[in-house]
Amino acid sequence: MTDTEYHRLLGMSRDAFADLESHLVERTDDGRTYCHVPDYRRGVERGTSLIDGTVVRGFPKVPRTLVLSEGVPERFADQPGDRIAVEEKLNGYNVRVVRLDGERLAFSRSGMICPFTTRILERLVDLEALFEQYPEAMVCGEMIGPENPYTAHDYPDVDSIAFRAFDWRDRESGEPLPVETRRERYDTFDVPQTRLFGQFEVDAAAAEIRRIIEELDAEDREGVIMKSPDGTAQLKYTTSAANQGDLAYAFSLPFDYGQPFMFRRLIREGFQSIEWDESDAVARERAHELGEAILLSMRETIDTVDAGEPVGERHTVRASHETVDILLEHLEGQGLTIEIEDDRREDGDRVCTFLKVTRSTIDKTRNYLDGHIVKE
Amino acid sequence: MTDTEYHRLLGMSRDAFADLESHLVERTDDGRTYCHVPDYRRGVERGTSLIDGTVVRGFPKVPRTLVLSEGVPERFADQPGDRIAVEEKLNGYNVRVVRLDGERLAFSRSGMICPFTTRILERLVDLEALFEQYPEAMVCGEMIGPENPYTAHDYPDVDSIAFRAFDWRDRESGEPLPVETRRERYDTFDVPQTRLFGQFEVDAAAAEIRRIIEELDAEDREGVIMKSPDGTAQLKYTTSAANQGDLAYAFSLPFDYGQPFMFRRLIREGFQSIEWDESDAVARERAHELGEAILLSMRETIDTVDAGEPVGERHTVRASHETVDILLEHLEGQGLTIEIEDDRREDGDRVCTFLKVTRSTIDKTRNYLDGHIVKE
Repeated sequence: MTDTEYHRLLGMSRDAFADLESHLVERTDDGRTYCHVPDYRRGVERGTSLIDGTVVRGFPKVPRTLVLSEGVPERFADQPGDRIAVEEKLNGYNVRVVRLDGERLAFSRSGMICPFTTRILERLVDLEALFEQYPEAMVCGEMIGPENPYTAHDYPDVDSIAFRAFDWRDRESGEPLPVETRRERYDTFDVPQTRLFGQFEVDAAAAEIRRIIEELDAEDREGVIMKSPDGTAQLKYTTSAANQGDLAYAFSLPFDYGQPFMFRRLIREGFQSIEWDESDAVARERAHELGEAILLSMRETIDTVDAGEPVGERHTVRASHETVDILLEHLEGQGLTIEIEDDRREDGDRVCTFLKVTRSTIDKTRNYLDGHIVKE
Repeated sequence: MTDTEYHRLLGMSRDAFADLESHLVERTDDGRTYCHVPDYRRGVERGTSLIDGTVVRGFPKVPRTLVLSEGVPERFADQPGDRIAVEEKLNGYNVRVVRLDGERLAFSRSGMICPFTTRILERLVDLEALFEQYPEAMVCGEMIGPENPYTAHDYPDVDSIAFRAFDWRDRESGEPLPVETRRERYDTFDVPQTRLFGQFEVDAAAAEIRRIIEELDAEDREGVIMKSPDGTAQLKYTTSAANQGDLAYAFSLPFDYGQPFMFRRLIREGFQSIEWDESDAVARERAHELGEAILLSMRETIDTVDAGEPVGERHTVRASHETVDILLEHLEGQGLTIEIEDDRREDGDRVCTFLKVTRSTIDKTRNYLDGHIVKE
C-alpha cells in the first residue's frame, strides 16, 4: 500500500502517516484487500479504513458526562445562544455505510467491513437514491433489535433487526452535516432515523434531558446523544437501565469483560444517584437492583459451568442461508469460537442461534469450582 | 551492603542475589539503615528485610480458595490422614516481631520497620522471656482493634488496639513451628493468640468450616486460616461480611483502590452464594447487601466531596505523645498526606484522629461533579 494518496486524504504529513502505517491492520473481504486502524491512534479516528485508494473515516468517540447539570453547559460552552439537539442513543452496534465503486459496504466501529451488515442492510433500507445524489456520503447509524449478531436488545417496534440513522458525515473528512439538514435529508430519502426529542437551550437542556432519561429508563432504553446544531460537538448520557443491563451482561461473563468496563458503570450509578438527589429509600432500591445485576448473573453463569454447559454471548440472526454462512465465517475469522445451538428455516430465511464461546469465563469458573487455589 | 552473608542466609546463589539486589529498597529507622523487598520477587518472600547482617524473612502469601468443598481437599491433599487446624483470620494488619541486638522490632507486611507498632507492642505484650529463650524467633501476628493506624475493625474484646499471635517462624529461614507446638509455646509465654476452632479431618473440614464461617459472618468477623499440622501449608477463606466490608471501604475511595481488589471480592460472593446453594430469596438478599456496600458508600463519598470536605482513610490512635508523632512522621515519610482532625489527651495518652487523604478520589470526584467530560 502506497501512501501517496492516503496521507493527503487523511490530512496528515508524510511522516505522521509513516508512523500510523505500522498500526494499520490488513484485512480481506470478498477478494478485496484493505487496511484499518482498529485502535485509536494519534491524529486519526479509530476505525478509519483505507480502501481502494480512498478513506472511510472512523466514527469519532462520543464523550460522556457523569453529571448532566454541569457536563452539558461545560461541553456546549462555545454555543451559548444555541439550542442543542437531543436524540436517542440506541443500544445496538454502530455501522457506517459508504458506496465504493458502485457497491455499498458497511463498516464496523473498528473499521472492518462487516459482510453480514453489508448484506442484511440491502433488505432493511434502500440507500440507492441517497448515494446516487451524494456519492461521498457516509451514512452512520445503529443496527438494533433482538436478531443481531453483536448487540441484541429488544425494541418494541423491531421484530428482527433494523437500521436507524443517527449521523451523516463526509466519508473522507468525517465532517458531519448540521443536525437539521441531516434529519431533512434522511426524511427525503425515507431512511429511518433515531428519535429527536427536541432542541433545547444549553442552560435548560439538563433538566429536559433528565425528564427524557427517566422515561427512557422506564422503557429499558439506553440514553441520549446531545449535539451542537452543526453536528460537531457531541455528548452522551445513559440510563440506569443501560448501566445495569451492561453490568448484568458483563458479570455473566466476568472473566471475559474488562474490569474497567464494570467499574465505569458502577461509578456512573453513583453520580446519577447523587445528581438525582435520591432519598435513602430510592438509593437503596437502586443499590438492590445494582447488586442483583452483579450477583444473580454471576450465579447463573457459575451454575451453567458447574452443569458442564458452555457460556458465552448468545445471538440469533435471521437472513439468507449464504449471509448466515458468511457471518459465521467472518466471526470465526476473528478468532471466535462459535457453537451453533439452533439452525432452521422459517419463511424462506435461515434462523440461526449461536454462542460466541467465552473461554476465559468457562476455564476460570471451572478452575475455581474444582478448588483451584488463588494466589492473589 | 555486601552480599557475602546475605545470599547464604537467604539460601540463594550469588547470581540470584545479585538479581534480587536491584529490587531492594533502602530505608532508615531511628538511625538504622536496612533494606527490604517491598514486592514479591522470585525466590524470596515479599517483605523480607536485610538488616544488621541478618535476615528477617517475609510472611508468605496465604493462598485462598473460592470453594471450600473442593479447595480444602485440593490444598491438603498431601496430608490425607492428617487433621488440619482451623484458626481465626483476624481483620487487622500483619506484623512480625523479632529481636535484634537486644531490641524488639516490628516489621510490616512489606518489610518496613513500623516505629508505631514497635513502640505500642511494648505495652500490649511482654515478649522478653520468649526472645530470651528463643532469640531467633519471629513472632507473627495481627494488630487488631478500632484504634489502629492501618486497618481498624471493631472486636468486642478490644477497646483500643491489641496483638494476637497466629504464627511462629524462624526469623531467617521462615520455617514455621507445628501448630500445636506454637500454641503451647505462646500459652507458656502468656502471649494472646488467635482462636483455634479445632482440628478436623481433611474430608470433614469443609463442612465444619462452613458452620464456623456462618457464625463469624453473623458476628462481622473476617474468616479462617487452615493449616497443616506442621504449619507449612496454609489456606484462607473469608466471610461475606468481610468481602462486603472491604467493598464498602473500597467504593468509599473508588479511585484510590485498585479495580482488581473490588473485582475479586465480587467474584468471591458469587462462588460462596453458589457453594452454599442459596435459594433465590437468600441470593437476592445477598445481592441487595452487595449493592448497598457498593452504592451507598460511593454516594457518601460523592456527597462529602461535593460539600468540599476531604475524603480518605480515617484512623484514631492512642499512644504516648512521642509515639503518635513518630507514627505521623512515618506515614508522611511514605508520601501520605495526613490531616489531623482531632488531637487530645486522655488518661495520660494522646488520642489522635487523622485522615490519610486520598487525592485521586477527591480530584476525580470533584472533576466529575464539575462536569468533566469522560472520554472512555
